[in-house]
Amino acid sequence: MSTRRNFIKQAGAAGALSVLPFSKLYSQPATNRQTPSRWADGSRLVVSVSMQFEAGGQPDHAESPFPQNMIKGYRDLPATTWYEYGYKEGIPRMLDNWDKLGIKVTSHMVGTAVLRHPQLAKEIVDRGHEAAAHGMNWSSQYNLSYEEEKKFIKDGADAIQQVTGITPVGYNANWLRRGENTLKILQELGFIYHIDDLSRDEPFVIQVNEKDFAVVPYTLRCNDILLIEGKNFSADQFVAQVKMEFDQLYTESNSRRRQLSISFHDRIGGTPQLVKAAHDIIRYIQQHDGVRFKRKDEIARMILKDKTAVRE
Amino acid sequence: MSTRRNFIKQAGAAGALSVLPFSKLYSQPATNRQTPSRWADGSRLVVSVSMQFEAGGQPDHAESPFPQNMIKGYRDLPATTWYEYGYKEGIPRMLDNWDKLGIKVTSHMVGTAVLRHPQLAKEIVDRGHEAAAHGMNWSSQYNLSYEEEKKFIKDGADAIQQVTGITPVGYNANWLRRGENTLKILQELGFIYHIDDLSRDEPFVIQVNEKDFAVVPYTLRCNDILLIEGKNFSADQFVAQVKMEFDQLYTESNSRRRQLSISFHDRIGGTPQLVKAAHDIIRYIQQHDGVRFKRKDEIARMILKDKTAVRE
Amino acid sequence: MSTRRNFIKQAGAAGALSVLPFSKLYSQPATNRQTPSRWADGSRLVVSVSMQFEAGGQPDHAESPFPQNMIKGYRDLPATTWYEYGYKEGIPRMLDNWDKLGIKVTSHMVGTAVLRHPQLAKEIVDRGHEAAAHGMNWSSQYNLSYEEEKKFIKDGADAIQQVTGITPVGYNANWLRRGENTLKILQELGFIYHIDDLSRDEPFVIQVNEKDFAVVPYTLRCNDILLIEGKNFSADQFVAQVKMEFDQLYTESNSRRRQLSISFHDRIGGTPQLVKAAHDIIRYIQQHDGVRFKRKDEIARMILKDKTAVRE
Amino acid sequence: MSTRRNFIKQAGAAGALSVLPFSKLYSQPATNRQTPSRWADGSRLVVSVSMQFEAGGQPDHAESPFPQNMIKGYRDLPATTWYEYGYKEGIPRMLDNWDKLGIKVTSHMVGTAVLRHPQLAKEIVDRGHEAAAHGMNWSSQYNLSYEEEKKFIKDGADAIQQVTGITPVGYNANWLRRGENTLKILQELGFIYHIDDLSRDEPFVIQVNEKDFAVVPYTLRCNDILLIEGKNFSADQFVAQVKMEFDQLYTESNSRRRQLSISFHDRIGGTPQLVKAAHDIIRYIQQHDGVRFKRKDEIARMILKDKTAVRE
Repeated sequence: MSTRRNFIKQAGAAGALSVLPFSKLYSQPATNRQTPSRWADGSRLVVSVSMQFEAGGQPDHAESPFPQNMIKGYRDLPATTWYEYGYKEGIPRMLDNWDKLGIKVTSHMVGTAVLRHPQLAKEIVDRGHEAAAHGMNWSSQYNLSYEEEKKFIKDGADAIQQVTGITPVGYNANWLRRGENTLKILQELGFIYHIDDLSRDEPFVIQVNEKDFAVVPYTLRCNDILLIEGKNFSADQFVAQVKMEFDQLYTESNSRRRQLSISFHDRIGGTPQLVKAAHDIIRYIQQHDGVRFKRKDEIARMILKDKTAVRE
Repeated sequence: MSTRRNFIKQAGAAGALSVLPFSKLYSQPATNRQTPSRWADGSRLVVSVSMQFEAGGQPDHAESPFPQNMIKGYRDLPATTWYEYGYKEGIPRMLDNWDKLGIKVTSHMVGTAVLRHPQLAKEIVDRGHEAAAHGMNWSSQYNLSYEEEKKFIKDGADAIQQVTGITPVGYNANWLRRGENTLKILQELGFIYHIDDLSRDEPFVIQVNEKDFAVVPYTLRCNDILLIEGKNFSADQFVAQVKMEFDQLYTESNSRRRQLSISFHDRIGGTPQLVKAAHDIIRYIQQHDGVRFKRKDEIARMILKDKTAVRE
Repeated sequence: MSTRRNFIKQAGAAGALSVLPFSKLYSQPATNRQTPSRWADGSRLVVSVSMQFEAGGQPDHAESPFPQNMIKGYRDLPATTWYEYGYKEGIPRMLDNWDKLGIKVTSHMVGTAVLRHPQLAKEIVDRGHEAAAHGMNWSSQYNLSYEEEKKFIKDGADAIQQVTGITPVGYNANWLRRGENTLKILQELGFIYHIDDLSRDEPFVIQVNEKDFAVVPYTLRCNDILLIEGKNFSADQFVAQVKMEFDQLYTESNSRRRQLSISFHDRIGGTPQLVKAAHDIIRYIQQHDGVRFKRKDEIARMILKDKTAVRE
Repeated sequence: MSTRRNFIKQAGAAGALSVLPFSKLYSQPATNRQTPSRWADGSRLVVSVSMQFEAGGQPDHAESPFPQNMIKGYRDLPATTWYEYGYKEGIPRMLDNWDKLGIKVTSHMVGTAVLRHPQLAKEIVDRGHEAAAHGMNWSSQYNLSYEEEKKFIKDGADAIQQVTGITPVGYNANWLRRGENTLKILQELGFIYHIDDLSRDEPFVIQVNEKDFAVVPYTLRCNDILLIEGKNFSADQFVAQVKMEFDQLYTESNSRRRQLSISFHDRIGGTPQLVKAAHDIIRYIQQHDGVRFKRKDEIARMILKDKTAVRE
């Protein structure tokens, strides 16, 4: 009832679209699913676990389970002890759990947290886990100028390097909120991947400053902050949901390579109930053939060398 | 203790009711349940599954799982990748699931989403599913003038027709919020049904512009946006609740024909955990006799021809 | 380290307490649990189910599952259909369920809802359930003057009487929020009980206008509005929680008589998933000896005649 | 890529850290886990249960399950009855449950609640439980002056002593929110421990006024207020989560001594569904060897005498 010409005119008039032939406004055809069925290491499904190290670096009156209703000028002392739990109990407990399970994880570390708890940061690395960067402070960076942001990222990376001896190659912005310059800066500073992307269930390669850069997607669905800290999920619901996530990805990985991402934070994922949850989830996953637990730097290096990787 | 006369006087005086004999202020006696026990196709229960195609068409700063606290003037980059997931992973995964399960679904498509991802929109239709209309943009229409709204609906329908070759006959307004003119416009434009109604567990027929128009009721109870995006429900709770919904409707359908509606959205229902959930729910339903999965256009056509349909 | 004299002085100085000997500031010693172990009807546990009849009587823009963000001056049409569900599907489905289960329930009815759907109100009574009062309109009464409130209560009761032929003897205020005059007015108008009290797990007797008046406590813990409408609980969680509530009360009722209250609302408790939930809960309860399902007027009459009732 | 010197300069320039050698800004190395594997009483895991006694002492318009939308100047009568439940049903029911289970608990008591219900406070003590202090009123103390706060704490303790004959030695601030002077005052007044700390899963010793003071950490994860009052968790989820918490701590306690804290409040934990939950949790825990249920004063005394205790 309307010709193509009319349609394009209408669409343009609606102001929502420029008058272009139908084409990829986004770079990747959505249904392009012709990739090999195995990763370079022979696995069909890689599992990436995060152990975020932030506690001790939080600002005053950071979000916590306590009501945000204090009179100005007073310190929230119980909230501070809630954060302390992250380095006094949370990280040590998780470290023991990873050893028991025989897996290595990635720890994005806030610079100030690392400087306040250097022994713990070093222990994470000494026990075989990846130290990755998470900014100098626990604060937004999307609103910084190019120079400010570069310094913000570099200071955090330097803190990790000084304390652990490792130069981080991966990045995670506060609340995933990178700015327009973030990826360029990361490429300039020698980083090889970032995780602030939720668009795919597999790692992929993008062009930044005309060079390859890896994206190792993060998760909100299997993430303790969104599900547990808000008290919406009990620990057993977390187990049930992540198992269902795995089941489907594992089925898909029969014909197509896939990635599962699971994320824990020191003061939340390090509680007894969630360490038990992580234990049960990972033991369940480990009963399946063709699955590999990998650090994100390993995934990034693997995908950057892979000519068949999804590229955007 | 009060006469009928007094009562009516009081009721009128309360300003809440006009002085009328007791009668149907609403058109349908609530307890009229004398209809045949089988649909025209011989089934006792029809199940209608939605796969909403919206991602890519969302406005800046559309609702997402991220905190809505950004400084003005900056783009929410991780939220954008959350939406990208809808067309890069969500719809393709759901399409494979429907094939595996052997069912056809209805996809209400936002016009701008269709134009940005035409191949995907076309693939939905090519694989046997219904392309239905969901407005030109991801925005409210209840506050538009008659002319604006007519153009808004027509542009969206035209986009679908241009891209998929199919003229949509069904409509869904943003957040179900039609305005006072919406149904008239839909009738004028040749639509045969809408879904923005939660009043019954079966399709029914209303009069619009003095002609029949079908209502195929939608759902909030078996809908991934309300239950999952808000992080209130884990995926296993979704399975449990929809099974209970089915159990009761199936029992009722022994003596009265019924409809179950289930709704998924690209970026939510297309996640591994919810595709697993949908799989488990649908396999459970398929074990029961007398149940048919139908596209909403099929349901609308069936009910419009049915002299015994509920009419309002 | 402080004498009693000092202590009393301090307590008084703190302004929180008058200088009184320790005594019952509230009228009932909290640990007085010496009552007979069986109710007058021989049961150890009475179960009272509510089926609130409100839909159709709601004000414009009453709370609903839809976001409360509409531009002023427009009607929320899908929310209206959500309420319509209450009388088109909800009440009829629940009525069938009560028959199947062989129980009688109490229906607190908003006056305007009764006048808009008189046949349905009458059917509730004809099928053996109690019609109780819930105010003339769906609105607060705690802020009305004595005269206004008396008219508000009486108009609602009259509406029920006119439509069903039954003079209601029980009352429930909007959101349980009675005012300082409510009980006096109810006593004056001939009511024998109210439910707007959560203080006990058994009915009890209070003095109003120097005469006995029954309190049949209501519930928030086994109430579909708080648990289900907010999307915090799935239907299977509702079942699990109410069963645990019953289990404990049943255990207690071995030595002490108890009451369990469960509440459903037309548009929420009348959905298939919650009718299935109610069915499973009630079948579970019915497997236990010594339990009676009773209308609230029956409970009130029983307790008013019982010399051993808890009295405040 | 940056020297240590540069790094320190940058860190200092960022204003987040003073130019110090890496060292313990917090006093306790996070990974110091070399302590004996058994407590002084021979147990590997101590379980501390709280039964908070607050109802009756709440201020007008204290938080409750009711919407906080009342017109000013009116009393919230149903909310008052919700609080009354705490002393009429909740505490008595919990007391019976503890007897049945054979455990003794700690009851932090608001002074005004104790004065309004002295018999109940006394019964708690008479049945072998610990009476501990919780302030004179149900209100914040972090914003009081030193003198005001000292009086606030002392009045509450005196009320308990007068009513129960017991001088409380443990303290809990409203919402855990102690101020900068609180611990000093508690030490001056003869208290031996406080619970307003979430930093560890074991009791520990700190220095206050240059003397030892015990910390018996509280919990938000196994606490009925956060999980149940907000209607986020059903009672069965509470059971599942606390069991998972126990399972992990019990596993750890094979090589390291641990503490599990569980908290109930009169009007919430005293409901039938949560008493059933507490029963099931505690019966589960009691099936394990090497676990002791202890009052918090017992834990504090034990840890204060223990040379191997964690000290900060």
